[in-house]
Amino acid sequence: MSASDPAPARPAVLLLSGGLDSTTLLAIAAAAGQPLYALSFRYGQRHAAELAAAGRQARRFGALAHEIIDLGHMGRLVAGATALVEGSPLAVPRGRAPEGAPQIPLTYVPARNTLFLAYALAWAEALGARDLWIGVNAVDYSGYPDCRPEFVEAFTALANRATRAGVEGDHFHVRAPLLHLTKAEIIRRGHQLGVDYGDTLSCYAPIASDDGRALACGACESCQLRRRGFIEAGLPDPTAYAAR
Amino acid sequence: MSASDPAPARPAVLLLSGGLDSTTLLAIAAAAGQPLYALSFRYGQRHAAELAAAGRQARRFGALAHEIIDLGHMGRLVAGATALVEGSPLAVPRGRAPEGAPQIPLTYVPARNTLFLAYALAWAEALGARDLWIGVNAVDYSGYPDCRPEFVEAFTALANRATRAGVEGDHFHVRAPLLHLTKAEIIRRGHQLGVDYGDTLSCYAPIASDDGRALACGACESCQLRRRGFIEAGLPDPTAYAAR
Repeated sequence: MSASDPAPARPAVLLLSGGLDSTTLLAIAAAAGQPLYALSFRYGQRHAAELAAAGRQARRFGALAHEIIDLGHMGRLVAGATALVEGSPLAVPRGRAPEGAPQIPLTYVPARNTLFLAYALAWAEALGARDLWIGVNAVDYSGYPDCRPEFVEAFTALANRATRAGVEGDHFHVRAPLLHLTKAEIIRRGHQLGVDYGDTLSCYAPIASDDGRALACGACESCQLRRRGFIEAGLPDPTAYAAR
Repeated sequence: MSASDPAPARPAVLLLSGGLDSTTLLAIAAAAGQPLYALSFRYGQRHAAELAAAGRQARRFGALAHEIIDLGHMGRLVAGATALVEGSPLAVPRGRAPEGAPQIPLTYVPARNTLFLAYALAWAEALGARDLWIGVNAVDYSGYPDCRPEFVEAFTALANRATRAGVEGDHFHVRAPLLHLTKAEIIRRGHQLGVDYGDTLSCYAPIASDDGRALACGACESCQLRRRGFIEAGLPDPTAYAAR
């Protein structure tokens, strides 16, 4: 490398579920030029098919590595408290929550984003990465407490008190560029960056098609937000729905 | 239950490694009368024998459940950055760090207590528990950033922004009663509460004895702190050391 070459960009860790938001996040981070380490989780979620999409998207956007962490034990700890993991006695609600319903839906998974960012932080410190990318969104956010700006700020403060790098002044940053975007704005942004939304899965309760693909149910809250997002963005919806 | 019975105490989650500090913590929490859920981790640590001690201590102090979470994948993420997990190219240092050495030792595991508390938080929210007990200590603390009061405060703030219970005003508390105690004070406290320190393991690099027991090496920083603690407490040291 000659003296005039720019310094190599610092690596970053990116949380990638294979859904619409985190795949858009991946496209944004790749466009920013950071070498990316993508991190996904298998936590007994009913929608594990999204992990296969995550792997394809990570390769497509040039991630240097894609790790899938098996959190199968999470189901045992939290199954009674969320509808979103296998073995839960709760069903995934269909449609948006009615007015007057509890603010935080049954699909909330206790401390999920705290746990995901804790893993991202551990990996980042070991890699020498200081940026943690997460696709949380506080506009069309379904009422999850760990998708709000207050959460992002609190985790950043924690990261810089909990780690060697943080206390030595080499600070971590949580990058959450989707935080204040509507679903339609997220879709428009990803569309500009060439995201293939046909190969992302947002559905909480997908249905296997005859040829083994995972079809979106079209009815859960996540499907409804996604559908409405494409309509509001004025873009064709490439999602394979089981029912329209 | 009659109207005059006291309300049942709220359950709590307690991080239990099977070492001297967390076993003393267990005795303190049990004496406080909370129904306890003990949580341990297998993360490829070189000193996994402490988990067997953790199970025996949890039963001895009446914990309602003891979960061991397998974080075998942590080794893959952080092995290059800590001496404390199997597969690491780094050796556990012998003795205390010399003056002028880096402040944070090689046995630091990136984001370990953040990850442990994240699991404790998830389980606690699912159980209806609001107290998270952790045996961190900032006096004889070996220089770990995630054993300081600033870390405990930052995690508490995060917990109450990240969770359904926290944002609904039913706050989490991180209980860290060992935070400002010396090792000798911890040992005296546990001795009063009947802790059998002969069945705890603090060593970072234990050695298997001929009869299959795990003997403390006597040389690593953790062993040296422990030895000095018993001497300063003026109590007999029941630890089985491989070398004295």
